[in-house]
Amino acid sequence: MVAPLGCLPQAAERLDNDVSRLFDNEIVVDVERLNVDSASFVQMETLGEVGAQILATVAERGKQHNRVTGSGGMLLGRVARVGSRVAGRASVGERVASLVSLTLTPLHLERVVAVDLARHQVEVIGQAVLFESSAFARLPADLPETVALAALDVAGAAPQVARMVKSGDRVLVLGCGGKSGLLCSSAARRAGASVVVGVERSEAAATAARRLGACHQVVVADAADAVAVAGMVLAAAGGEVDFAVSCVNVPDAEMGAILATRDGGTIYFFSMSTSFTKAALGAEGISRDVTMVIGNGYAPHHAEATLALLHDDPALRSLFLERFG
Amino acid sequence: MVAPLGCLPQAAERLDNDVSRLFDNEIVVDVERLNVDSASFVQMETLGEVGAQILATVAERGKQHNRVTGSGGMLLGRVARVGSRVAGRASVGERVASLVSLTLTPLHLERVVAVDLARHQVEVIGQAVLFESSAFARLPADLPETVALAALDVAGAAPQVARMVKSGDRVLVLGCGGKSGLLCSSAARRAGASVVVGVERSEAAATAARRLGACHQVVVADAADAVAVAGMVLAAAGGEVDFAVSCVNVPDAEMGAILATRDGGTIYFFSMSTSFTKAALGAEGISRDVTMVIGNGYAPHHAEATLALLHDDPALRSLFLERFG
Repeated sequence: MVAPLGCLPQAAERLDNDVSRLFDNEIVVDVERLNVDSASFVQMETLGEVGAQILATVAERGKQHNRVTGSGGMLLGRVARVGSRVAGRASVGERVASLVSLTLTPLHLERVVAVDLARHQVEVIGQAVLFESSAFARLPADLPETVALAALDVAGAAPQVARMVKSGDRVLVLGCGGKSGLLCSSAARRAGASVVVGVERSEAAATAARRLGACHQVVVADAADAVAVAGMVLAAAGGEVDFAVSCVNVPDAEMGAILATRDGGTIYFFSMSTSFTKAALGAEGISRDVTMVIGNGYAPHHAEATLALLHDDPALRSLFLERFG
Repeated sequence: MVAPLGCLPQAAERLDNDVSRLFDNEIVVDVERLNVDSASFVQMETLGEVGAQILATVAERGKQHNRVTGSGGMLLGRVARVGSRVAGRASVGERVASLVSLTLTPLHLERVVAVDLARHQVEVIGQAVLFESSAFARLPADLPETVALAALDVAGAAPQVARMVKSGDRVLVLGCGGKSGLLCSSAARRAGASVVVGVERSEAAATAARRLGACHQVVVADAADAVAVAGMVLAAAGGEVDFAVSCVNVPDAEMGAILATRDGGTIYFFSMSTSFTKAALGAEGISRDVTMVIGNGYAPHHAEATLALLHDDPALRSLFLERFG
């Protein structure tokens, strides 16, 4: 199934993407749309035509696994075949979104139909294999599919923030106007944060964050400018924050988050652009006793929780409908 | 001081290492020995002569900041000059070890005297600058300096494990025979772990871990072989562990740790070889609800706690004296 043999799909250089053989624990999906990880999409955009790069990567690796960012995304499609051992889990014809990364999902692409630069989504014709252990979600009836796909791609973000933020916490959301940033801001506010400060580089995204209304204050700044960001956040929050979440899709946001978070506080690095060593050595370098948590795309019932948040927060839903609908 | 201007020392491409100008908040140290981060040292060894690579890096960047691993290490030396504003913090002639990474410490090297392959230490003649905010430790009187330096280099490891392990926890230590692995095993056992399982690739290091006696069982396996490692750990621990710490100095240990840790458990990635995306997407890929924490080289009183552990655990001290004395 994978090369080199014996390694797990995410670590594999290449996956076998021959969907003509159906194993009894597999579900084959006719893929219609890829939702590409934001860090990966932005990186490919800097190099040129995104569609061609995706075709090349999938042809070479049997999966959409960006070599530079190490990240993937997820897919939307229609169940084509269901193995006998997983017969109860899905029905042929059902519309599903994968909840595991494209970096470990065997994928075969016939062609790219269109690249959707605004949504970081790519319309394709192809097939993918979901394993028994793979998580996937049925698409909800009350949301356009492109919206559900966009939200489910970052399904791990908001539920983790909801678990980690304690009532009364001062919270920082870096990249508060992006997809995961909007979800995290809403989740932090609902978890009882006393102050939510958002940082956003682009004026347009900052405007979206302000419309959401979850942040008490939205600061326009480049998250990579650590000293400036920390200064603005401290002023806006009235001191260092208890909890920070990084949702930016460009490198070098580690130090701003560390500088703005108090000793004993927690930073949740949801962004795939995070550098492990920059975070580890950055905190050590300024002797900051923060707990830095690696974003985990999975949490129990994360798909349901994320869709419920979109359902319950009208401003959030309206922003998602405008941007991804 | 740094290039590009305005960025922090760790993120900087290059630091100004001109030690002839003393600022009033700086301490200049005559450097005698570098303790190179293990991941960095091993990476340089694969390319050839370590001493020449260090000289080249320091000449180019004004600091020992490995471009591939992103990591540094720390230094040992004698205080040469003390700025007026930090007069009380150190005395000229005092022997000190830096507790912040070499990746953010301005360093000028005159030459490399000897490369100590066994200890991953390099004897040098040079000067470094410690800032007011920089943490450093006075060297203890009761330990050879090479031993203290080796322990202080990973001073963040054991105190963090001591804080995170709860009484009765099942614990996994990946790389249990290395420097930080020995410290973490001892700390986990002392924190009241009910079972400590160690994994070690080399027989010699496994023997050292067995002599330490902190692990209930030491398994010889390659941490990169995730499925095999997880199988052996589950058998040895009687189930998935509550807490895992990764101390390996080679890539690809993320998935073994994730597979071996229970839903709701915690993984502490102390190893600088850890890949953020491999950890993030690996846990998502198998829908494992684990909290993954980025190793922070700093914890309050970490130097004192680490030296106290060496003092209190005779087997640990004896192993450190043999290996680094």
